[in-house]
Amino acid sequence: MSLEIFAIEGIGEVRPHDDLAEVIVEAVGADVLRHRDCLVVTQKVVSKAEGRLVAINPSDPLSHKPLVEAESVRVLRRRGDLVIAETSHGFVCANAGVDLSNVEEGFAALLPVDADRSARRIRERLRARIGVEVAVVVSDTFGRPWRRGVADVAIGCAGIAAVVDLRGSNDALGRELKVTEVALVDEIAAAADLVMGKSAGLPVAVIRGLDDAWFRDSSQHSSVQSEIVRSPADDLFR
Amino acid sequence: MSLEIFAIEGIGEVRPHDDLAEVIVEAVGADVLRHRDCLVVTQKVVSKAEGRLVAINPSDPLSHKPLVEAESVRVLRRRGDLVIAETSHGFVCANAGVDLSNVEEGFAALLPVDADRSARRIRERLRARIGVEVAVVVSDTFGRPWRRGVADVAIGCAGIAAVVDLRGSNDALGRELKVTEVALVDEIAAAADLVMGKSAGLPVAVIRGLDDAWFRDSSQHSSVQSEIVRSPADDLFR
Repeated sequence: MSLEIFAIEGIGEVRPHDDLAEVIVEAVGADVLRHRDCLVVTQKVVSKAEGRLVAINPSDPLSHKPLVEAESVRVLRRRGDLVIAETSHGFVCANAGVDLSNVEEGFAALLPVDADRSARRIRERLRARIGVEVAVVVSDTFGRPWRRGVADVAIGCAGIAAVVDLRGSNDALGRELKVTEVALVDEIAAAADLVMGKSAGLPVAVIRGLDDAWFRDSSQHSSVQSEIVRSPADDLFR
Repeated sequence: MSLEIFAIEGIGEVRPHDDLAEVIVEAVGADVLRHRDCLVVTQKVVSKAEGRLVAINPSDPLSHKPLVEAESVRVLRRRGDLVIAETSHGFVCANAGVDLSNVEEGFAALLPVDADRSARRIRERLRARIGVEVAVVVSDTFGRPWRRGVADVAIGCAGIAAVVDLRGSNDALGRELKVTEVALVDEIAAAADLVMGKSAGLPVAVIRGLDDAWFRDSSQHSSVQSEIVRSPADDLFR
């Protein structure tokens, strides 16, 4: 198996009510995307297209703080200005996903209301527009406990399994693997970030060559929300 | 920028004292690897080559438990058979990295003593053997709090920055990004896992096309241990 990963060049600033599928097709052309490509789209452009922007006072460095409180259902840690909070989706991240980078001055971006739905919508619009069935992952940049540095993870997906369950498969020595549920869409989001660059204005990447068995058609369930987000009861760290 | 990722086929069972660079060259041939390829090598084959195997009683499902205790410097959580522990390296992971999967029956594999050194050794041996300067990342499979499923991360690296510091870069709208230290080698490990498969006997992958600026020569520092592992004092979750 061999993968190819490339960023889509030429996507300009995305504005509220933009049709992201149309924006992508205009940038990449109608004949580049292929059946079973996986598109990774950053949260920032999804939030912008969906109008998840809130005006803040650009001269007050704390003016986004009430938004952070409003987006948090549970605060896990505070240190100085930093808040690690759980969002209504169940994501645990800095500032409950409220973000000022790569957003026009005077605005903060909130997470999409339902990024699985955002992914499904992009996938369906691309199918309607160019007749190609792609998977879509919406990615965001999260910190991690215990390890320095941020890494991209998935907050929504469509057309691809969020988690690949290898339980019951055999390892290379023929014995049954006990628990190996791989967070496929998180690995896909991380891989895509390698060609995006945080500041380069490349919000969409294409991964080509993923295992056919990982794709899901529209009748099959696929969701970061229900497959990746751990319930608090199931979580040793909440 | 475009990346190519492929697994190296034909690597058989690795045994103590095997020279991993030689094993890799025998499998891939002397003319496939190129300057500034990044090789991702799973912890399991590194541990095997370095003889980090300990005999256990295969008929006793708990016989590896004393090893877990010995490898732990701090236990963060216990639930049933599961122990989440900090290792002497500062990694926080299940069973302190003690692993029975893809290891011969009757043995458990421990983490390499110093996986940065393991990576450096593979990199230097490959340079000596085929005259090509590659980066090397040693990967392992860790669970995460708050999110279901495991994902591959880096436990050692050589020849490539572990963390890429984008602080002070400008975002796409020309404003300064405040903190964006990207855990590059973790994203590389995750990307490589997409072509490896947990059970397919593909312990080495090649990533080709990474940004030239991320590579480090032998005189430059590069280390998961010192760049990625968060000190407890710096950590909100310990």
